[in-house]
Amino acid sequence: MKELVFVESISSFQNPRVKQAVKWRDRPDRDQDQVVLIEGYRALTRALSGEYPVREVYVCPEYFQGENEEELLLRLQARGAKLYRVAPGPFAKMAYRDRPEGLLGVGPQVRRRLEDLPAPAGPAGFYLLAEQTEKPGNLGTMLRSADAVRLDGLILCDSRTDLYNPNVVRASTGSLFTLPIAEAGSAEALAWLQQRNIAIVSASPHARQLYSQADLTVPLAIVVGAEQFGLSDLWLQAATVPVRLPMFGEADSLNVATATALLLYEVVRQRLAAGLLQDPGPVPESADC
Amino acid sequence: MKELVFVESISSFQNPRVKQAVKWRDRPDRDQDQVVLIEGYRALTRALSGEYPVREVYVCPEYFQGENEEELLLRLQARGAKLYRVAPGPFAKMAYRDRPEGLLGVGPQVRRRLEDLPAPAGPAGFYLLAEQTEKPGNLGTMLRSADAVRLDGLILCDSRTDLYNPNVVRASTGSLFTLPIAEAGSAEALAWLQQRNIAIVSASPHARQLYSQADLTVPLAIVVGAEQFGLSDLWLQAATVPVRLPMFGEADSLNVATATALLLYEVVRQRLAAGLLQDPGPVPESADC
Repeated sequence: MKELVFVESISSFQNPRVKQAVKWRDRPDRDQDQVVLIEGYRALTRALSGEYPVREVYVCPEYFQGENEEELLLRLQARGAKLYRVAPGPFAKMAYRDRPEGLLGVGPQVRRRLEDLPAPAGPAGFYLLAEQTEKPGNLGTMLRSADAVRLDGLILCDSRTDLYNPNVVRASTGSLFTLPIAEAGSAEALAWLQQRNIAIVSASPHARQLYSQADLTVPLAIVVGAEQFGLSDLWLQAATVPVRLPMFGEADSLNVATATALLLYEVVRQRLAAGLLQDPGPVPESADC
Repeated sequence: MKELVFVESISSFQNPRVKQAVKWRDRPDRDQDQVVLIEGYRALTRALSGEYPVREVYVCPEYFQGENEEELLLRLQARGAKLYRVAPGPFAKMAYRDRPEGLLGVGPQVRRRLEDLPAPAGPAGFYLLAEQTEKPGNLGTMLRSADAVRLDGLILCDSRTDLYNPNVVRASTGSLFTLPIAEAGSAEALAWLQQRNIAIVSASPHARQLYSQADLTVPLAIVVGAEQFGLSDLWLQAATVPVRLPMFGEADSLNVATATALLLYEVVRQRLAAGLLQDPGPVPESADC
């Protein structure tokens, strides 16, 4: 199939598909229909490479920002996505972003449990457990960092954010669709980690050991808490490797997504130094980023 | 002075001070009057410890969250702040936050130039230069990290965000009021760094050297670019220490505030290891965080 095939051409603001997309911005409507909106070139590219099931794509070429949209759509179509051509007015209404890119995908909400996570890629499993994260922007930024270090799994514990909130999708730059993410209760997640002898690394301003002095080459889960109150007592007490980020200023804590990235990248630094990971090397200058 | 003195008691929504505070949410009104809103216990505490000139504080005890507000207000009053008692209705209208804490300060916009930055605290100067940062949340998070590593100065180059945007203040958790921040054009900033022999460290996916392999114990400025397009050619070419954050996933970049924190903390890690910095140690369990 070398041509784009549009199953419908939409020009009216009253079209039920336009109204539906607008409704899906609200969580109750998204959850009732178990859908996620995948907006923009980057998010759809990630969904494709993560083999995320994209069911429909609403397309408005008048808003395209680049030259590769058609190729992306051909590939999504080949994987089963139905394409709809939408006129600029109704598309702007459907789009969540201020600056629409002419691409709005719809997929199912994929819900994984702990037992659905794949086996670790290397000898030392590498997990992130986020407890009760509240802000979609923080969760999305954590997903983006989690993709960058290629986690074996992200575990959301007693989450207070909707994973499929459009602001999570946006801040994750689509990493939501490439990562193995499981949702679990705290007790269940703790048992899962303990059964597998996975070290539990938590950050606290009270810990004696600096994060850069702990041995992070063993199988481990970095465990981070909620924005305002940090980790619950359950996780603070369950931690086998309590570590501290050095704080030289007035404040005693960092943004949760920042602290998460510092811990994830310290794991990477140590595993690169120990030969457990290989430096992926620089991106060639000519590469299309 | 051991008692709080209120210069006025405000109970009407029509009070000109209530209307003024609402107007100051918009940048043109803030800039015209050269003011910044300092909302909440944490931000005002930081403003106090940073000796930021807080001119007025609007106070509504009905919204207090803790028990230390009165002590904070006594200290602010002793440093010259005028206090206004505000009834809950009008206060909720003045407050920017959804969950007001009963404290809303007003201060002047402090504008520093490069020559106003203090001399470096240690033998190796430590600066962050942020070029054209766009999103207030990112800039605020960068300020919070900059406070944590106790930078000698933050240089905002050709900024596209208003430093005094309430979302910058909030994401910075008040670090805006404790940090030495200068605003400058790129050419001016480059000359300033070069004259002082300050190394220019930039991150790029194309750089050969990993950030953890570069020598970051010398006097340096970490230079980071805008969210969407990264550093301008001027700064990419001026960089004396191009480094790369290893990227193992689908994406080729991290959130700008995340990347900034990783670079800042690698400087800290190396300087701790080299004895140029001393670990501040854990916060005692009993400390009031």
